[in-house]
Amino acid sequence: MTTSSTPVRGALMAAEIAKQPGVLAGILREGSAAAAEVGRVLRERRPRFVILAGRGTSDHAALYAKYLVEVRLGLPAGLASPSTLTAYGSRPDLRDVLLVAVSQSGGSPDLVETVTVARACGALTLAVTNAPGSDLALAAELHLDVRAGAERAVAATKSYTAELLTLWLAVQAVLEEGVDAAAGLTDAAAALVERSDEVGALAARYRFTDRIVLTGRGYSFPTALEGALKLMETSYVAAHAFSGADLLHGPLAMIDSDHPVLAVVPPGVGEAAMRPVLERLHERGADVTVLGGPASLALATVGMDLGHALREDLAPIVDVIPLQQLALHSAVARGFDPDRPRGLSKVTETW
Amino acid sequence: MTTSSTPVRGALMAAEIAKQPGVLAGILREGSAAAAEVGRVLRERRPRFVILAGRGTSDHAALYAKYLVEVRLGLPAGLASPSTLTAYGSRPDLRDVLLVAVSQSGGSPDLVETVTVARACGALTLAVTNAPGSDLALAAELHLDVRAGAERAVAATKSYTAELLTLWLAVQAVLEEGVDAAAGLTDAAAALVERSDEVGALAARYRFTDRIVLTGRGYSFPTALEGALKLMETSYVAAHAFSGADLLHGPLAMIDSDHPVLAVVPPGVGEAAMRPVLERLHERGADVTVLGGPASLALATVGMDLGHALREDLAPIVDVIPLQQLALHSAVARGFDPDRPRGLSKVTETW
Repeated sequence: MTTSSTPVRGALMAAEIAKQPGVLAGILREGSAAAAEVGRVLRERRPRFVILAGRGTSDHAALYAKYLVEVRLGLPAGLASPSTLTAYGSRPDLRDVLLVAVSQSGGSPDLVETVTVARACGALTLAVTNAPGSDLALAAELHLDVRAGAERAVAATKSYTAELLTLWLAVQAVLEEGVDAAAGLTDAAAALVERSDEVGALAARYRFTDRIVLTGRGYSFPTALEGALKLMETSYVAAHAFSGADLLHGPLAMIDSDHPVLAVVPPGVGEAAMRPVLERLHERGADVTVLGGPASLALATVGMDLGHALREDLAPIVDVIPLQQLALHSAVARGFDPDRPRGLSKVTETW
Repeated sequence: MTTSSTPVRGALMAAEIAKQPGVLAGILREGSAAAAEVGRVLRERRPRFVILAGRGTSDHAALYAKYLVEVRLGLPAGLASPSTLTAYGSRPDLRDVLLVAVSQSGGSPDLVETVTVARACGALTLAVTNAPGSDLALAAELHLDVRAGAERAVAATKSYTAELLTLWLAVQAVLEEGVDAAAGLTDAAAALVERSDEVGALAARYRFTDRIVLTGRGYSFPTALEGALKLMETSYVAAHAFSGADLLHGPLAMIDSDHPVLAVVPPGVGEAAMRPVLERLHERGADVTVLGGPASLALATVGMDLGHALREDLAPIVDVIPLQQLALHSAVARGFDPDRPRGLSKVTETW
């Protein structure tokens, strides 16, 4: 019998998933002033190249920002390989470079060192964290607080969507485009949070698989990566994400009807680019769950219409919610506690 | 009974793996002049940022080059997300940018378009291919032929190591450092090719796993990625590579004694950075095969001493050989033909 003193498995993670609409609304309400100031500095300093650094979940936020920077700002961008600055001691010429470090805790020593070294090498540095007083926030010249509130579950959820929206706001601020495009964001997030039961049915279908491939393209590739990481962290499933294009360059061979695929395909340019991938998977007889819009669902074994009409650059902020819920439901169904994944702690220190 | 007219499964792949010492020797003998010319142009044009683009195996060569560019040339570098230029139509300011596109066939339409667009946006462009007359070679301002000879097996092997050595030669040429450091390379490759039986014993141990994690750090991270891709392509194993640091940020949770790990840890800086990772895996009771030097083998369940003393930036050119052999042996042991992976063709066209 479950008594009130027995914590429900995954209660923390479930609560933090559910808080996301409120967190996003708070960022839209209160985060714009700080983003505007960062936007002003970036317009003045005019970086020509952007390097983004993060680990785990925050690395996926960094990849989302890479797409924003390349597509919306028209600047070449790359993800950092932190070990080149830390372990290998490289001291590159980073004038005209903006280095953005993303971290929930702001506590990972290798990221702090990356920012410190990059700053000494001439980079403009921006930390995006959920911890304004953290070493990372203090090491960088600029800081944006993602305002997610304390995150207690080991598997990051609300801090991820808060990072995405904060990065989006910063790009909007550089472009001086305001936040009107995000008008439907909070409602779309709330609507997806409410559909947890649908995701539970999906999790039941995956109860006995020990591996799954996730895929997406463009803005949705980070969503696929983050969904895979949640499944690995909480349910110990070998969940492997590929961009749609990379999937066709080799990994496709391992897909058969017993190796399920989950594709994230919201409407937009990435959806059109995913069509040949979905067709190839269909030809191979793969079992494909599509989270997407009506056009993609036609090629799905199982489909969930994401049900929003957000601009493609905003969609990742809400599209990850069903994947967070899938990880939660999958863990609980397997008898694991997603709030306490084996072998992990909330702050991972790497050098 | 096997007759002379029955092709042996994996015969093409085995032959191409075995050709690598000769291919590498040929590149060292005949590739330096072209590399020197590229080096001269790069010293003259002085790019400030480098973007590297590739798909599948060639993407791993691009990542190897990213480490070379950052550590040895001291230039910030990033991997391209081709869809931003192709599907999303981004037109960034690429003056002072060197874009390097790596492709065995030189035939992937999205890479050709990436080079064409990057060149129009002001980038200096370099194609590294095994096909001097290919669209990619013709689209780029500079071209390096990797001189691997025709590659017939679908799973790329000799073209990969040829790409790595060609990229290494180009960096040496920029630095005007010559090729003396590579004196032991061909012999090290030949010695590893001869140890196929040892790898066969390792493959036997993995006969019944359907998933494996590979890991490495710094220069060895691309080796782990490439080993994973070979296993996926030929043996349909869910093989997932993580940098040592990223492994600790979440994926570690899915590792138990039934989820084997293979770590690539040649002597050097990356080895020191991998020590805490090997220790954490050891604490979790993971089954870890180490391909490395004596210091790392102490933390291994099963070990294979790579047996060379190559400089760390050269080690990836030979360290991938046992992983190619592992993929070959694993496929054959499972009754698959690694020369004809299901669902794949030699040239993958993606847009």
